[in-house]
Amino acid sequence: MTTTPAHELKTRISSPETRDRLLLEVEKRMHGFLAQQRERWSADKVSDTLVPIDAVAELLDAGGKRIRPAFCATGFLLAGGEPDDPVIVDASAAVEFLHAFALIHDDVLDDSPLRRGTPTVHTKYAALHASAGWRGESRRFGEGVAILAGDLAYVFADSLAADLPPAARQVWDELRAEMIIGQFIDVKAAAEFTVDPDLARWIAVCKSGRYTIHRPLLLGAAIAGRMDLSPAFEEYGVALGEAFQLRDDLIDGFGTSTATGKPTGLDFDRHKMTLLLALALRRDDRVRELVTQEEWDSELLSALLIETGVRADVERRIERLVEQACEAIDRAPVDEIWKTELSSMAFQVTHRDR
Amino acid sequence: MTTTPAHELKTRISSPETRDRLLLEVEKRMHGFLAQQRERWSADKVSDTLVPIDAVAELLDAGGKRIRPAFCATGFLLAGGEPDDPVIVDASAAVEFLHAFALIHDDVLDDSPLRRGTPTVHTKYAALHASAGWRGESRRFGEGVAILAGDLAYVFADSLAADLPPAARQVWDELRAEMIIGQFIDVKAAAEFTVDPDLARWIAVCKSGRYTIHRPLLLGAAIAGRMDLSPAFEEYGVALGEAFQLRDDLIDGFGTSTATGKPTGLDFDRHKMTLLLALALRRDDRVRELVTQEEWDSELLSALLIETGVRADVERRIERLVEQACEAIDRAPVDEIWKTELSSMAFQVTHRDR
Repeated sequence: MTTTPAHELKTRISSPETRDRLLLEVEKRMHGFLAQQRERWSADKVSDTLVPIDAVAELLDAGGKRIRPAFCATGFLLAGGEPDDPVIVDASAAVEFLHAFALIHDDVLDDSPLRRGTPTVHTKYAALHASAGWRGESRRFGEGVAILAGDLAYVFADSLAADLPPAARQVWDELRAEMIIGQFIDVKAAAEFTVDPDLARWIAVCKSGRYTIHRPLLLGAAIAGRMDLSPAFEEYGVALGEAFQLRDDLIDGFGTSTATGKPTGLDFDRHKMTLLLALALRRDDRVRELVTQEEWDSELLSALLIETGVRADVERRIERLVEQACEAIDRAPVDEIWKTELSSMAFQVTHRDR
Repeated sequence: MTTTPAHELKTRISSPETRDRLLLEVEKRMHGFLAQQRERWSADKVSDTLVPIDAVAELLDAGGKRIRPAFCATGFLLAGGEPDDPVIVDASAAVEFLHAFALIHDDVLDDSPLRRGTPTVHTKYAALHASAGWRGESRRFGEGVAILAGDLAYVFADSLAADLPPAARQVWDELRAEMIIGQFIDVKAAAEFTVDPDLARWIAVCKSGRYTIHRPLLLGAAIAGRMDLSPAFEEYGVALGEAFQLRDDLIDGFGTSTATGKPTGLDFDRHKMTLLLALALRRDDRVRELVTQEEWDSELLSALLIETGVRADVERRIERLVEQACEAIDRAPVDEIWKTELSSMAFQVTHRDR
């Protein structure tokens, strides 16, 4: 008779349904945390102290896919974590607050007007400044509020990460540095208009593969004491991160802003060297000719990507990457129920319209 | 025979000289930490990953008064902490990295061209973008790099704060939220041109009293397990914070940029409602008349502040606040050698020309 290893026994107590209940707790925690912050800052009896807190709250209330908390909670439960451990609830809330920080700052970097169907923080406060006729420049005021609201979301994220065990804290530190440096390389490559599919893929791996998938999964597993799952999560995250980014690029190029809650077509209009475009450039000279011109026609580019088969190719590439991700998990010491769930999540994050 | 309490015995092993040696370790730690980060990111073999790390390093290398690490290390040693505890070295380095983050973002908010005698991050990278003829807007690129470099300094600060004990971590969280919300209220009051000495004083208490003095002292003491010192540090910090801010305002109004390494006269030129100006407005109708005009003459304002005796008054107010701060520490359960040192630090931070 063989004995069942402890971690396999433990995984049986949880399932994707347990995870979904845990994610409801995460939502409650985020709102509860914001309520505590409001209470603490109301005590100072200074008006407007709640404005940056509310800016963060409004972004969270506007929706969002909550992909990172889902991966974090999944990584924790499949590693045998106890579903009622408050540390995983806080950590999952922390990754979502961190994402709020990233989005608010990114929207300044990209000058995006809309996010989750509502005006971005910097747009909203620039408009308020202009309509109130305040002193100084409206753009600087709006962007200043967004910088500070983002900074505050970051503090909230870190406060929620206070009780992480040491291995998980290292993952948390890596995740944050990677996200910021990945974003810097992205901004720099866009400015230089670097045509380099390898660099575009590295950016996708950093920003989507690691930040969105590998690190949240590993953060959860690290809380449950299973750092050994890192290689499998990395392989899954790297493959899926590229697929995730390609889907983002396709949505921006061919999706509708009704579905996304943010403008589409921005990458083409702003001549962004996306992974999609980097692949297209290598494949077809007409694409290269079009995008190396000073001005280009985004409609023509869309049509060309369809005509040359690039779009269909990218769809096939996404399928292959999803398969690769699923195979990585299949080989890992993970319970069947979670293998199935991670396959289903791989499909979901790469087959979305927003 | 009375027995000496344990914490008094422990304080005897350290002195301001011990603190100065500890602060040398803090400098080493900051550079060592940056070297580790450079090594980690060089491994990715992607060019430019070191750019945001170097932006943070350049600001640290350009100097700075290191006031916050000094208060942090002082709070720790006077509370009886062991001088060779690595946690205090990391925590003192963390407050300085946090300050680098605050400065880089503040310089975007204020559009300041110079900091510590060198161009600010956003100015430098906007100029690089313009001279290289890259795509997009130079201002957005420069400010984007500064936002991300600041964010990265913030992550570094947190990585260094990883081993804080729970009480110290709470101080760390409070310190960060206060600094950001204080900064927001400052930006908002400047835009609205709010004439309210009480609000100006609250901002000074938040940004200087707590962020610069009270919280760093308490962070150090909390690491040594002496949260009981909080009320004395708070009284010291609040009084000194106001004095610190008044000195800042005087330096900006009457100092030279050769000494400060940043432009002076900016507050007056930008019609900023400083604590100095808020006090002056209440005291003299000619000041009020001058500054409520659409355009004003900064030279005339300087002359008026001297003629009406506001400047001399503010100098006297600084003296009274320093006395108040010293009295608060005098009543606290602190060793004589540290009482003397904190009095001397109170004098130093309020009698500086930069």
